[in-house]
Amino acid sequence: MVETLLLGRWAEDRRISRRLVLDPALHKTEGLGTIEHRARAFEQLQILVDAGAIQRPYPRELGGQDNHGGNLAAFEEITTADPSLQIKAGVQWGLFGSAVHHLGTARNHEEFLPGIIGFDVPGCFAMTETGHGSDVQNIATSATYDPATKEFVVHTPFRGAWKDYIGNAALHGKAAVVFAKLVTQGVDHGVHAFYVPLRDDDGAFLPGVGGEDDGVKGGLNGIDNGRLHFDHVRIPRTNLLNRYGDVAEDGTYSSPIDSPGRRFFTMLGTLVQGRVSLDGAAVVAQKIGLQIALTYAMQRRQFPTAGGVEGVLLDYGRHQRRLIPRLATVFAQSFAHEQLLRTFDDVFSGRADTPERREDLETQAAAFKSLSTWSALDTLQECREACGGAGFLAENRLTSLRADLDVYVTFEGDNTVLLQLVGKRLLTDFRKRAPRDAASTAKFVAAQVGVKLADASGIRRLGQTVADRGSLAASVTDLHDPATQRALLAGRVDTMVTEIGLRLNTAGKDRARQAVLLNRSQHELIEAARAHAELMQWDAFTEALAAVPEGDTRRVLVWLRDLFALGLLEQHLDWHLVHGRLSAQRARAVSASIDRLVARLRPVVPQLIETFGYEPGHVRAPIALGEEQARQDEARAWFAAEAAAGRLPEQEKKPRA
Amino acid sequence: MVETLLLGRWAEDRRISRRLVLDPALHKTEGLGTIEHRARAFEQLQILVDAGAIQRPYPRELGGQDNHGGNLAAFEEITTADPSLQIKAGVQWGLFGSAVHHLGTARNHEEFLPGIIGFDVPGCFAMTETGHGSDVQNIATSATYDPATKEFVVHTPFRGAWKDYIGNAALHGKAAVVFAKLVTQGVDHGVHAFYVPLRDDDGAFLPGVGGEDDGVKGGLNGIDNGRLHFDHVRIPRTNLLNRYGDVAEDGTYSSPIDSPGRRFFTMLGTLVQGRVSLDGAAVVAQKIGLQIALTYAMQRRQFPTAGGVEGVLLDYGRHQRRLIPRLATVFAQSFAHEQLLRTFDDVFSGRADTPERREDLETQAAAFKSLSTWSALDTLQECREACGGAGFLAENRLTSLRADLDVYVTFEGDNTVLLQLVGKRLLTDFRKRAPRDAASTAKFVAAQVGVKLADASGIRRLGQTVADRGSLAASVTDLHDPATQRALLAGRVDTMVTEIGLRLNTAGKDRARQAVLLNRSQHELIEAARAHAELMQWDAFTEALAAVPEGDTRRVLVWLRDLFALGLLEQHLDWHLVHGRLSAQRARAVSASIDRLVARLRPVVPQLIETFGYEPGHVRAPIALGEEQARQDEARAWFAAEAAAGRLPEQEKKPRA
Repeated sequence: MVETLLLGRWAEDRRISRRLVLDPALHKTEGLGTIEHRARAFEQLQILVDAGAIQRPYPRELGGQDNHGGNLAAFEEITTADPSLQIKAGVQWGLFGSAVHHLGTARNHEEFLPGIIGFDVPGCFAMTETGHGSDVQNIATSATYDPATKEFVVHTPFRGAWKDYIGNAALHGKAAVVFAKLVTQGVDHGVHAFYVPLRDDDGAFLPGVGGEDDGVKGGLNGIDNGRLHFDHVRIPRTNLLNRYGDVAEDGTYSSPIDSPGRRFFTMLGTLVQGRVSLDGAAVVAQKIGLQIALTYAMQRRQFPTAGGVEGVLLDYGRHQRRLIPRLATVFAQSFAHEQLLRTFDDVFSGRADTPERREDLETQAAAFKSLSTWSALDTLQECREACGGAGFLAENRLTSLRADLDVYVTFEGDNTVLLQLVGKRLLTDFRKRAPRDAASTAKFVAAQVGVKLADASGIRRLGQTVADRGSLAASVTDLHDPATQRALLAGRVDTMVTEIGLRLNTAGKDRARQAVLLNRSQHELIEAARAHAELMQWDAFTEALAAVPEGDTRRVLVWLRDLFALGLLEQHLDWHLVHGRLSAQRARAVSASIDRLVARLRPVVPQLIETFGYEPGHVRAPIALGEEQARQDEARAWFAAEAAAGRLPEQEKKPRA
Repeated sequence: MVETLLLGRWAEDRRISRRLVLDPALHKTEGLGTIEHRARAFEQLQILVDAGAIQRPYPRELGGQDNHGGNLAAFEEITTADPSLQIKAGVQWGLFGSAVHHLGTARNHEEFLPGIIGFDVPGCFAMTETGHGSDVQNIATSATYDPATKEFVVHTPFRGAWKDYIGNAALHGKAAVVFAKLVTQGVDHGVHAFYVPLRDDDGAFLPGVGGEDDGVKGGLNGIDNGRLHFDHVRIPRTNLLNRYGDVAEDGTYSSPIDSPGRRFFTMLGTLVQGRVSLDGAAVVAQKIGLQIALTYAMQRRQFPTAGGVEGVLLDYGRHQRRLIPRLATVFAQSFAHEQLLRTFDDVFSGRADTPERREDLETQAAAFKSLSTWSALDTLQECREACGGAGFLAENRLTSLRADLDVYVTFEGDNTVLLQLVGKRLLTDFRKRAPRDAASTAKFVAAQVGVKLADASGIRRLGQTVADRGSLAASVTDLHDPATQRALLAGRVDTMVTEIGLRLNTAGKDRARQAVLLNRSQHELIEAARAHAELMQWDAFTEALAAVPEGDTRRVLVWLRDLFALGLLEQHLDWHLVHGRLSAQRARAVSASIDRLVARLRPVVPQLIETFGYEPGHVRAPIALGEEQARQDEARAWFAAEAAAGRLPEQEKKPRA
């Protein structure tokens, strides 16, 4: 039941992918040298092609299935095999192929997609430059149209404009989708994408193309990231991926989107699937990590407890606090990701491709990807520490997964930048509802600032007054009420955005002053965006509960959802106190309530892990596959036998004082 | 001035070590295979011996200098070259050699130390077992005395008792100090240390000895960690390191310490230098990391700002918030470490080897090591993310340092376990001052619980009442008062410990109930220990300021100390609010004040980094050595030249609405 819920709408695609990645040929070999790991990942991509694992998103006429959501669901599960394999496949089909698919037209598809889909043409997605990462709009590579030869001339003007961190660039890429400023008839029309051949069949760079290897990285060393530069490289006019902008033979530029800004963001918007899939991959990696650490924690014993027997790690209060709340978080993220996948599929299937839905997609992707990828690093690290020295061994996978996922927090949009985008969207919404004249603003401010806010902003309907309610038990019950939880989470977002919005309004139309104030509020704005993302995760969890009938299962899931909510309240307790949303007494109840929920969930941890549906071939860490239990059993048996045989030495007596 | 302050009492030892590690032969080669990295680290150890870099702590009669503090200071600086080199040297001389030195007597020293110091006998410190890490008292390897042959028989009874994660065990170790339960005349006298030969000159295991390789790890792959097991291995009676326990030829056990418990902790106490040095190494790694990320942040430009020019990263509000408070923390940790080193030297030089000073040493080492090693992971990760894709490249060192330092948080005592030790010591202190009869306890409780506490516990002398003071400015001034800062930090520790202590008291003499309550309070107790450690760091910073004369330098250092203090208040703001120590209004002032301090410190960041005293040969990351500045300069020059020549294309105009 819960397993099906977690598998989501594309359960079958996930199952097929999970079966496929049980193949040891697809698994990461820990400790492989960079050269060997790159070669292995390259060969693994062909296995994926041969298994029909990567064709889902492409058009039916080119052997695909037009299955966008299912494609990402299947793709995310590859993380369990090797994140390098996942990302290398993502470079080839999710970025390189997807750019041709979504930024190109039928002409481009026919010419380029078959080679990409079949992996005859391993390729690159050459967007980022050494000098510009998340700020794509300011890259400096140019593609200038020459009507005399009907070619574009792709050129790198200086070192900072080299394409950098590009997967497949160091070794395997035969071609690239290169992002460059399109210049024709002396006008710069902004960033467009061009198909540029890179290497000949022997792997040598074509004339004018150059590059270098990015070398060893903090993780993902199965991917040959590198740099590329172009010295007046000529490509046919038709190598422009021309869905959103085209140049006629005579050099005339045309586009279905008039505004250069909107055109740019529309083009970038088609590439959102990278973010969506990273969100899913981060959830998968956390499930694997938690399954390893929690299984070990239920078998490993350390330090004698009151009864003289050594305690199982997960029975220690601190250990429960370290791992069980993170289990609740990964459930929330899993449900949130499922919503994101549905939004993505709605838009990309064309079933509901509206500007509003696209905007939802952008916001959800930016918000969820940021939170889940950061959470993955935090969770995997906590798991590794919770397993002590065993957690540090590569064979137990936790350090390896963490190292590979590290870059997820800054690529496909740096999390800090993405949350700012979310924050700015929240500010835009605020401006639509904020008063504009001074008198109403004053009233608005008075209502929002200080302790009075608690009464003025609708919190009263939660049944809480600022004063203590007198009874600890009563307040705990309230905190378990979803309406209370939501009001607290949503109220925080609203107030944070309002505070920042009003501050920015004081600048009036002075743009320089606005910029200064925005920069001063940057830290807060990002925190507001995070709060918004957390609220959306809570919503997703709560909506998922709607599908679960009353009973034990539902009860456990509600505990998990409550633990997630209370965890958020505890993290931001200072804010709720300062803003008069929680009294000191109720605030104390938050931590006490978390302790109780964690203890209540402790006995069902095995069942909760089981709902992930992963097999030993996905988990693979020896400490999570019975190795530790066998050692514990052997040790106990040995002590029992020695004691029975009277062979145990006496303990030295403490001397009498 | 500040540089001298940071270098501390053993400045000269640090300087000598820093000069030595400029030798590229000692530097980590990123991306080296495990086999090659192990071989390289092995050879590097001989370089250290030949340079006289490791002899400092040993007795003068054996070529040493009896210089304990200086030894660790010099040793910590090796982290800049390669943490694997540092830890492999630590295994040989800080653990293996040090165990013989401090647990052995002259007889052991003469026989074993020359080979260890000269590196003719690479060796292991075989304490941890697969089944027991931080809980050393319950290891299961035994050494049973056989009076017939005057030998100890070292034996591993089951798989869980294999020695594990042992440096030098997989490959290079020719001998080991093995920790085992000493059994003689049918009595188990607890854990003692034995010198056990492992391998012959060809590197083959001696009869009865076996083992295996731990394989690839999450970091520190220059060290050949492995497992060892013993099948009735016989060693001479005199291979017992017999300072704290000896066995006569007839099998009679004797010890200068009667209590087995105290004997065990005394023996372990001699091995504290590992923790002390990890604390120092974590500080060194953070200085390198921050120097890299802050240098890059002052050169790297991204996103156009109000003036149209791209902004330098460190001028963005969020970026300042990410890095500058961590700079303040590393100053605090640096001063705290210097105090720890002095305590360590006082005890180990015998100059002030009292039980109280030993206890201080244990507490400081456990507290500071835990906080600084966790902080190192956090800081290095933030630095890596702040450098984006460039931060993920191994050449820029941040991921590499982080991976290598990962295990510092669980080895030489798991941080969670260490903080519990600190917490238990705090509870012991509490019990000495807590009332024992019911009436006084009731009064004590009334005074401690709820809002009233703010008045009852001496906080009133800070000049704050629970009510708002009416003026934000006034409260900010107060928060910059060191007496206020200390009272808030210290008051938190006292109250947390009191709350836990009173709760445990309710169990009376019921030991099972006590254990249950202690386990329920485990999470809080660890947080209390952390709070205590933070207070000690704050004290160290403030004491260091006493040596700085009035003037600009002092002013900047005071800002840094204030930033450290306010950062701690902000982290625990919820606690201070719930306990009525800070009003909502003053709590708001904390964050505002941090923002102001961070902005004030921004211009002096270059000077602050300079006080670390590291040279390019220590930093080595290309992005921190001018590479980025050169790229920025080139790009600007190119744009200027193109503009001057009229070669820049026009921008496409936005269509009129």
